[in-house]
Amino acid sequence: MTLRVGVIGTGMIGQDHIRRITQVLSGARISAISDADAALAGRVVEGLPGVRVHATGEELISSDDVDAVIVTSWGPTHETYVLAAIASEKPVFCEKPLATTQEACRRIMDAEVAVGRRLVQVGFMRRYDMAYRALKDVIESGSIGAPLMYYSGHRNPGVPDTYTKDMAIVDTAVHDFDVVRWLLEDEFAGISVHAPKRNSHGGELQDPLLMILETEGGVLVNVETSVNIRYGYDIRGEVVGEDGTAALADRGPIVVRQGGSVSGRVPTDWRERFVAAFDAEFQEWINVIGSGDAPNGPSSWDGYAATVVCDAGVEALHGGARVAIEMVDKPDLYLK
Amino acid sequence: MTLRVGVIGTGMIGQDHIRRITQVLSGARISAISDADAALAGRVVEGLPGVRVHATGEELISSDDVDAVIVTSWGPTHETYVLAAIASEKPVFCEKPLATTQEACRRIMDAEVAVGRRLVQVGFMRRYDMAYRALKDVIESGSIGAPLMYYSGHRNPGVPDTYTKDMAIVDTAVHDFDVVRWLLEDEFAGISVHAPKRNSHGGELQDPLLMILETEGGVLVNVETSVNIRYGYDIRGEVVGEDGTAALADRGPIVVRQGGSVSGRVPTDWRERFVAAFDAEFQEWINVIGSGDAPNGPSSWDGYAATVVCDAGVEALHGGARVAIEMVDKPDLYLK
Amino acid sequence: MTLRVGVIGTGMIGQDHIRRITQVLSGARISAISDADAALAGRVVEGLPGVRVHATGEELISSDDVDAVIVTSWGPTHETYVLAAIASEKPVFCEKPLATTQEACRRIMDAEVAVGRRLVQVGFMRRYDMAYRALKDVIESGSIGAPLMYYSGHRNPGVPDTYTKDMAIVDTAVHDFDVVRWLLEDEFAGISVHAPKRNSHGGELQDPLLMILETEGGVLVNVETSVNIRYGYDIRGEVVGEDGTAALADRGPIVVRQGGSVSGRVPTDWRERFVAAFDAEFQEWINVIGSGDAPNGPSSWDGYAATVVCDAGVEALHGGARVAIEMVDKPDLYLK
Amino acid sequence: MTLRVGVIGTGMIGQDHIRRITQVLSGARISAISDADAALAGRVVEGLPGVRVHATGEELISSDDVDAVIVTSWGPTHETYVLAAIASEKPVFCEKPLATTQEACRRIMDAEVAVGRRLVQVGFMRRYDMAYRALKDVIESGSIGAPLMYYSGHRNPGVPDTYTKDMAIVDTAVHDFDVVRWLLEDEFAGISVHAPKRNSHGGELQDPLLMILETEGGVLVNVETSVNIRYGYDIRGEVVGEDGTAALADRGPIVVRQGGSVSGRVPTDWRERFVAAFDAEFQEWINVIGSGDAPNGPSSWDGYAATVVCDAGVEALHGGARVAIEMVDKPDLYLK
Repeated sequence: MTLRVGVIGTGMIGQDHIRRITQVLSGARISAISDADAALAGRVVEGLPGVRVHATGEELISSDDVDAVIVTSWGPTHETYVLAAIASEKPVFCEKPLATTQEACRRIMDAEVAVGRRLVQVGFMRRYDMAYRALKDVIESGSIGAPLMYYSGHRNPGVPDTYTKDMAIVDTAVHDFDVVRWLLEDEFAGISVHAPKRNSHGGELQDPLLMILETEGGVLVNVETSVNIRYGYDIRGEVVGEDGTAALADRGPIVVRQGGSVSGRVPTDWRERFVAAFDAEFQEWINVIGSGDAPNGPSSWDGYAATVVCDAGVEALHGGARVAIEMVDKPDLYLK
Repeated sequence: MTLRVGVIGTGMIGQDHIRRITQVLSGARISAISDADAALAGRVVEGLPGVRVHATGEELISSDDVDAVIVTSWGPTHETYVLAAIASEKPVFCEKPLATTQEACRRIMDAEVAVGRRLVQVGFMRRYDMAYRALKDVIESGSIGAPLMYYSGHRNPGVPDTYTKDMAIVDTAVHDFDVVRWLLEDEFAGISVHAPKRNSHGGELQDPLLMILETEGGVLVNVETSVNIRYGYDIRGEVVGEDGTAALADRGPIVVRQGGSVSGRVPTDWRERFVAAFDAEFQEWINVIGSGDAPNGPSSWDGYAATVVCDAGVEALHGGARVAIEMVDKPDLYLK
Repeated sequence: MTLRVGVIGTGMIGQDHIRRITQVLSGARISAISDADAALAGRVVEGLPGVRVHATGEELISSDDVDAVIVTSWGPTHETYVLAAIASEKPVFCEKPLATTQEACRRIMDAEVAVGRRLVQVGFMRRYDMAYRALKDVIESGSIGAPLMYYSGHRNPGVPDTYTKDMAIVDTAVHDFDVVRWLLEDEFAGISVHAPKRNSHGGELQDPLLMILETEGGVLVNVETSVNIRYGYDIRGEVVGEDGTAALADRGPIVVRQGGSVSGRVPTDWRERFVAAFDAEFQEWINVIGSGDAPNGPSSWDGYAATVVCDAGVEALHGGARVAIEMVDKPDLYLK
Repeated sequence: MTLRVGVIGTGMIGQDHIRRITQVLSGARISAISDADAALAGRVVEGLPGVRVHATGEELISSDDVDAVIVTSWGPTHETYVLAAIASEKPVFCEKPLATTQEACRRIMDAEVAVGRRLVQVGFMRRYDMAYRALKDVIESGSIGAPLMYYSGHRNPGVPDTYTKDMAIVDTAVHDFDVVRWLLEDEFAGISVHAPKRNSHGGELQDPLLMILETEGGVLVNVETSVNIRYGYDIRGEVVGEDGTAALADRGPIVVRQGGSVSGRVPTDWRERFVAAFDAEFQEWINVIGSGDAPNGPSSWDGYAATVVCDAGVEALHGGARVAIEMVDKPDLYLK
């Protein structure tokens, strides 16, 4: 009855999901872990009585006491583990990216299609954020008319020195790409990338960036990434319709009047902003998988689409011109 | 065609109205001034070519080149000047208080009634503030149902050392009393005054105060005066109806995201908060008086009512118990 | 390791907590239930494999497979079950009221003191709401200075026909009383109750009410209950300090611009507004109790204090005058 | 002492400025009017005692009783009247556009430079809006760091049938172009125009548009025009700096809680939104001109720059690609 979950990759994100399943959510327990760094896995398991450490992800996946798999290892390893889970016909939750190349994503889709049912869910947690869900409800209600434009702002107070130019697209904007595809139920057709002068806090990093995308349905989408903007972690979003607009609200819990101003709090980081979305994402996954259903969250197709858009974005960033976004035909498995 | 206005009392407020009529508004000019301090009047007139200084307010009122009078002298002198203006059948704008005693206010009403038409307007500028006007529109629209309660907050960053306990009522809350009477079109029936522990910024001053009033129509009204609250000059108001509420909004012109917060500005003082209301108040008065009509702003009755409520408030403040508010019958002249 | 919880009283609230522990939270499971209506208990247990139904609450409390007890039965029965749990030295979570009389609350405190450690927690969930917690953080930070006043607004779109005059105090305002005691870390010293004209949606019900309380420390507290106000379930709160104020924010997740207005959503009912607080309240209780510690939430003393304030409030409501609030000395067990 | 103003062009805008100077502002009066439609001028003058009607704008400009000129005639006539005013060395306030071609704007600059002092002011009223002024203050304070991006949203509930594709740029976005140049104290270097699918309320009109501009200083500027968006007249603006952002606030005067939402009002049209800015613009102009100083508002250079940006925008709209914006060297007269 309790879903037994194996986690491959026990770094920061993996540990956070282990904590979540162990201490916060209902209906699942961690039964097994694995990490390329065996010493790390050893340290993590110490606080987890009854959990086995597996030498490899493949071993974990095939283990009898693992009902479902979470992949939070290094991106380049995702394809291998997801394919292994599909081969074992076990549900697998894979943090983004699904895989680091379009070809790998297509191999995953092919494998899943061959099995004939959905097993893969990709970790785009914004779809579980109550504000984005309210935005989608408004769009679907028709009260603001058909969407024509979307503004997405992805602002971060700072990034580590290891953050590179391309990461603004493949690590940061990828979340905006996915959530807009989901909100609009539409695919992207092209992207161009514009760069203003650099934020001096980022040194030589090309930051911020402004990406202009258009969808197949003709919606213009603006994505701003500002990853050294100091003031806070602020996710902005506004859909412009024919009759009105809807936007993510500032959500500070209180309003303080002090020293000549009336103010609310901006979140410090993504953990604060999206903790409830992560909880909801995994609780829904546990509930669905635990009851024997196929996952209903972001699919391999969504993981593939994100990778295609990111590839085009990186090309546009380096080349300067608009890059067309072309995808394979959508397999029937991923039609609603 | 241009209304010729005489100003009695050329202190700070008088000078501000002279500036307003001379430099901001249309349709009037200052033709004469007078002040108990002749030297002050002499200095003020220097920047005002073509303006005469009169030795006394009475002389100014009877002067041929004065069409209408503004009284901004010391409160205890108001009665004399207003009565003189009525005797001369000239329109008179009197800053609050209309007079310092109920009896004086009644003498003014009696004189005005004897003349048979309205000549007096009292300076309750909040009725000309666009936010209060929007509040009144919502109440009258019926969209929030019949009003049942009203919260009024009157917050000031600080007051001079000369500010006394009673001034919280007769100088500060008097504006709240008037605007609530106007919003609700109702008279007060009783008042009690409560005091929490003192704000230490005010030393021995009994500050803040919370006044609980009820109207003849059964609406409960809360008036908070906090006159040492440092953060800004903040006028709050919320009417609670049967179906909803309406409240004065924070009106900072911009929203700044900086240092972990999203914030707007709170006004510094009453000049910043109510400058547009003062302008509108005097422009409307000039327009009405200039076209030969009787003033349509706060009347002698409103000045009387404010004084009666303040007297009861001061008695309640000192006595501790609720004090009933009793007024004379309203003369027909002041019925709408 | 998993805390085994028995629930006495399986009506709406009891069922909601069963759902919460079974489907949402981590670290506990329902092991036993009981209800005065055996047929109801029988229906509830159907969806709960492995859960036993006990004929009486006492039997449930003494059962070996119950580590901790939740009391969600009819208020007048609370005393009996809480005392039985104390006698069994089992932790007990009792929904408010702790008991319906001050004397009963004192008997519970006496029993707990006799045992020598805290076992009882009372269900005042607002203390677990993140907005109230942020309010408390601001107060404690000192940034708005010492609190001088507090405004609490408790607004409900409607109440059932069974809602009586006193319930505005004992069922509705009791939450405001508790959360203010907790925010200010202060006890109430007196209360008076004022009633404006009635909201016509409530028929003969005396609604709304305005309660004026003062604390021992000299803070003035205002509690408005409006239980037929149609527009939504809206919990308002503002603390006025010496230097500034802090208030609960409107927290609609999105802002919609449509038809001439820019708007956010107001919650529909207490479930929507406080669902996360209920979850946090029980998760913290499970974590604390599960690790063998004494409960650290609202105590028997808090339950007693709430009852004393409510008794005074009801007396003031019927009598019209201020009623002093007098409590017994606080037992050492409840000192921090 | 009173500035005598002649108005050329007495259509809707001209009449509004006549009303403003006659009934609202201080220090000026209308002394003369002229319109190509003599019958219209005749009707307008009826309500204006003491005002002369001139047969031509040139006659009005050279009239002895005209100290300063306001040009609110049809755009293509602006050049002629502005040049005539310069020839007469009379101050002239010209509503936008300064002239309909870059060459005409340059002829005006040349004439003004030949005279050797500024006489021309162009009607970009946003610079007098208190919210834009607050935005500029924040930018100049440095508290949000150096500006890197700017979002401008220009939303209109609807436009007349005569509104053409190019007007989104030359009539609508021109205001955004000017105010951003003023806020950033920077010139534009290039523009591209993107169009999503059409708003169906606009029929065949290409609406909305998204314009991407970059400044010489490297700031990326986004201008959205949505002129059929129904919900209201909404001017949005946000500057993104290195450390934070500042944005125009929603400024509804009150907040209404009704029917499940908490809402503020959005303006209906540009008159409501910018009435105070128009008043401030003309009062400052009257004050400056009336005291014999040169105009200090938007200059011929600003009028020229707006025309150059609009020309590039129209070319980009039709051509699809980015168009470089190239201007002549700035004459010394227009350096600060």
